[in-house]
Amino acid sequence: MLQPIPDIKRVGRDHKPDDTIVYVGGVAIGGRRIVTIAGPCAVESAGQMLATARAVKEAGATILRGGVYKPRTSPYSFRGLKDDGLRIIADVKRETGLPMVTEAMDARHLDSVCGHADMIQIGSRNMQNYTLLEEVGKLRMPVLLKRGFSATLEEFLLAAEYIASGGNDQIVLCERGIRTFETSTRNTLDLSAVPILKKLSHLPVIVDPSHGTGIWWLVPSLARAAVAVGADGLLIEVHAAPEQALSDGVQSLRPDKFAVMMAELRRVAMAIDREI
Amino acid sequence: MLQPIPDIKRVGRDHKPDDTIVYVGGVAIGGRRIVTIAGPCAVESAGQMLATARAVKEAGATILRGGVYKPRTSPYSFRGLKDDGLRIIADVKRETGLPMVTEAMDARHLDSVCGHADMIQIGSRNMQNYTLLEEVGKLRMPVLLKRGFSATLEEFLLAAEYIASGGNDQIVLCERGIRTFETSTRNTLDLSAVPILKKLSHLPVIVDPSHGTGIWWLVPSLARAAVAVGADGLLIEVHAAPEQALSDGVQSLRPDKFAVMMAELRRVAMAIDREI
Amino acid sequence: MLQPIPDIKRVGRDHKPDDTIVYVGGVAIGGRRIVTIAGPCAVESAGQMLATARAVKEAGATILRGGVYKPRTSPYSFRGLKDDGLRIIADVKRETGLPMVTEAMDARHLDSVCGHADMIQIGSRNMQNYTLLEEVGKLRMPVLLKRGFSATLEEFLLAAEYIASGGNDQIVLCERGIRTFETSTRNTLDLSAVPILKKLSHLPVIVDPSHGTGIWWLVPSLARAAVAVGADGLLIEVHAAPEQALSDGVQSLRPDKFAVMMAELRRVAMAIDREI
Amino acid sequence: MLQPIPDIKRVGRDHKPDDTIVYVGGVAIGGRRIVTIAGPCAVESAGQMLATARAVKEAGATILRGGVYKPRTSPYSFRGLKDDGLRIIADVKRETGLPMVTEAMDARHLDSVCGHADMIQIGSRNMQNYTLLEEVGKLRMPVLLKRGFSATLEEFLLAAEYIASGGNDQIVLCERGIRTFETSTRNTLDLSAVPILKKLSHLPVIVDPSHGTGIWWLVPSLARAAVAVGADGLLIEVHAAPEQALSDGVQSLRPDKFAVMMAELRRVAMAIDREI
Repeated sequence: MLQPIPDIKRVGRDHKPDDTIVYVGGVAIGGRRIVTIAGPCAVESAGQMLATARAVKEAGATILRGGVYKPRTSPYSFRGLKDDGLRIIADVKRETGLPMVTEAMDARHLDSVCGHADMIQIGSRNMQNYTLLEEVGKLRMPVLLKRGFSATLEEFLLAAEYIASGGNDQIVLCERGIRTFETSTRNTLDLSAVPILKKLSHLPVIVDPSHGTGIWWLVPSLARAAVAVGADGLLIEVHAAPEQALSDGVQSLRPDKFAVMMAELRRVAMAIDREI
Repeated sequence: MLQPIPDIKRVGRDHKPDDTIVYVGGVAIGGRRIVTIAGPCAVESAGQMLATARAVKEAGATILRGGVYKPRTSPYSFRGLKDDGLRIIADVKRETGLPMVTEAMDARHLDSVCGHADMIQIGSRNMQNYTLLEEVGKLRMPVLLKRGFSATLEEFLLAAEYIASGGNDQIVLCERGIRTFETSTRNTLDLSAVPILKKLSHLPVIVDPSHGTGIWWLVPSLARAAVAVGADGLLIEVHAAPEQALSDGVQSLRPDKFAVMMAELRRVAMAIDREI
Repeated sequence: MLQPIPDIKRVGRDHKPDDTIVYVGGVAIGGRRIVTIAGPCAVESAGQMLATARAVKEAGATILRGGVYKPRTSPYSFRGLKDDGLRIIADVKRETGLPMVTEAMDARHLDSVCGHADMIQIGSRNMQNYTLLEEVGKLRMPVLLKRGFSATLEEFLLAAEYIASGGNDQIVLCERGIRTFETSTRNTLDLSAVPILKKLSHLPVIVDPSHGTGIWWLVPSLARAAVAVGADGLLIEVHAAPEQALSDGVQSLRPDKFAVMMAELRRVAMAIDREI
Repeated sequence: MLQPIPDIKRVGRDHKPDDTIVYVGGVAIGGRRIVTIAGPCAVESAGQMLATARAVKEAGATILRGGVYKPRTSPYSFRGLKDDGLRIIADVKRETGLPMVTEAMDARHLDSVCGHADMIQIGSRNMQNYTLLEEVGKLRMPVLLKRGFSATLEEFLLAAEYIASGGNDQIVLCERGIRTFETSTRNTLDLSAVPILKKLSHLPVIVDPSHGTGIWWLVPSLARAAVAVGADGLLIEVHAAPEQALSDGVQSLRPDKFAVMMAELRRVAMAIDREI
């Protein structure tokens, strides 16, 4: 059962009773408004990225996502456009005005990622990559820290503490499903994590139902649940043509389904005195 | 990933495309109205039961719960009032007019449980007690079938099929948390189970956030999430004095907190065009 | 980490420091000699059973296994020959002189099982079927209690305590694999369980590598490991024609492979000053 | 169940049917002789390291272990002596003549680790740190790749493939326990992994029962089981004074217990026609 975690000296509520608000290119995460971060799993081309960005912006997303360095289980899978992808990100940001989050897998990516994106994502597989966490702790750049797929909440908060202990407390925590025996979903989305993390820590907490389920038609209902449980934001994979996606197409929403979902989420948000 | 399950011949959507509605003493489970089943973990005394029943009824619960046969991990724990508890159930039903669900752990309990309660609960530990499922399949009595704490959704639906194949299709499925590596909660509530079960099966699906979390202050937020994800009902542990409960006090809501939660749930239900 | 379990009042080492030896038709389980229980998953016919029994006896097995009541995930799978199977068991015992263990799934099976078999198996799915455990506790018959596939060792020992608290302490514990995220094996065989159970309890502990892996060619190496880790016995599925088995063929050894394995096990047993 | 893994193009048995032997400072891993790698969790001082090294060498260990970069869950735990530790390693190697393995957590550690150690360990938390795996793939240095604590065997082999696809096939796989629901041990040692990995891949496979159990008195019995199941080596934490260890003392063997264990292992190894 829930135990105090003495070592969360900076990310714990004891250190700072008030909620932290993290600003990403002018968008506040952690306040009354629930933030939607949307976009494709991977940046594949300028056209794909721009079409998706415009669609999700129109539907209400306020931050874009898209990976250019992709951690893939097999070395022979598509692993991202790297620098070419960062240039696309810069173009799409200029065109749409949306801030952007992308993943860095290595300390050596940080310079270029910081030069093009507005928020650095630390992915699940790197949640306990402590040397990377330390480097990110030295930056003054917002961080999206995803829970490891088998990390306890204590380990998750201590990973955030690695970053915060370096001086960077602009951290957003992201629940994205954990590994369990159940095989009908890619992961098991652990929505209890949201109220627990918010009780133990002052950091904002968002939810990724796309990775959390791995199945596109489950995303809207789990997104509604995430809003209802108290998440400060959502991370949603959207792709203009999921069946052609180079990765994770099966869990990506089409833009029209995304827009329908956003309308539903607005009503749920209002029901708990928030907005989206 | 999600596979068809050929052997769910009677509980599968292919067999019956329309939603099944299960009637429990006049209360419909599976329709537009979300049903709240509430009450203590165990029937402890007539006074405790009646006080709790009146409080949950006033707050909007329409079915009572309370165990008289209690499966307990240790043989030396309180294991329920048995026949004395059934008599209390009969009295409380008469006083309040609420129908009642209680657990049967053994085929030999079925006669007396059917004589006093309106719905039989098959608990998580007995989800694969196949001889019990077969006996319950011969009855014409609504059944609340709880997911085993390590059962896949396929195993869960096949357990329901055991009951249905005997001729009893008045079955309500209940997600109540699964066993994972995470130790900050008693179980990990798997809310993805709700839309998956509803896609694969025509049976109503409810959620038990009390066992699903094991911590009373998590119950309201997870109950909101359960409503938002599409559950047809909730199973909530409420105790007039949780600190004196003979079992599960730590996960039981006080009546006043339960009433606050119900008001919140009404708003979330409206936001998805349902009511509670 | 390992904690004392106050409620194992009768099965705990504190209650009885010396190892318990359980006698099954003259065969001692828990002494220096490691016992091999072998046979098919299910009794299918007199011919199949007798052929397998003779083969495993010749290779060194001293107790036969074979199910007549089969807990199956789907109601439409083969569920055992029931009374016809018990008659076959009686015949095969007479022919071979081997004692036999078979599963009871329900209190109502106990009379007939006790009349034909020498040891009652309580299967994994029934490890927390507490009314069944209580009935078995009233008997004076050896019990083979299999660990639930998601039971902690504490829950396992408390299940044994249910039986022992009724007065029957002729209990053999069986580790048979637990449910984890790993999908390449049917279960994950938890061999650490053996020395832990033997430290906490005076009861004999055996291992079932057939269910523990679900793959026949893994059985001999895991059986060697089970002997080396200190198990008091093995439970091995053997079938004269695995490809024709009505259940679990994929994890059953052919008699010739079983004989080769037994020869290997003898050498490992000698290396730790035991015999088989 | 076990499926072919098409992407293990270089580490798969299809690519190379014969067992790979990895040479570490003249010691062959993967042949008939089972290799014992032993030493403290962390290099703490020259005295501690030398005392432990001499003791484990005398008892039969042929490779030393000891961490100087320590991945720790909390940023406030002892995280290794870093460069000072590497200098101690160099001294101890000179004194004892034993080759040494130590962990690199970051590509930036590789130069100095390669300059002092004979084998690079990639720890469990970095098993899917793909940029690190790629850098290690460019080296011509033996690698000890530990299974992630929640990695499937497929993911484990694909992590090895990352290294091999870069041209470095001097890889030793290490099973070190997986994360499950069981809490009495730190991890659940998955010994089935050994024969499965050896069937699918030509790489040597060793076992770490110290991390696999987290409890020192379980190490000898699980080490015996690892030898019996077919492991090519063992990784054992030994500390001259475990109660004063800066990390993992509770799972470290004293040198005298280690020597007793080695004598037992010799007998088990002989029983399966190997030596240690």
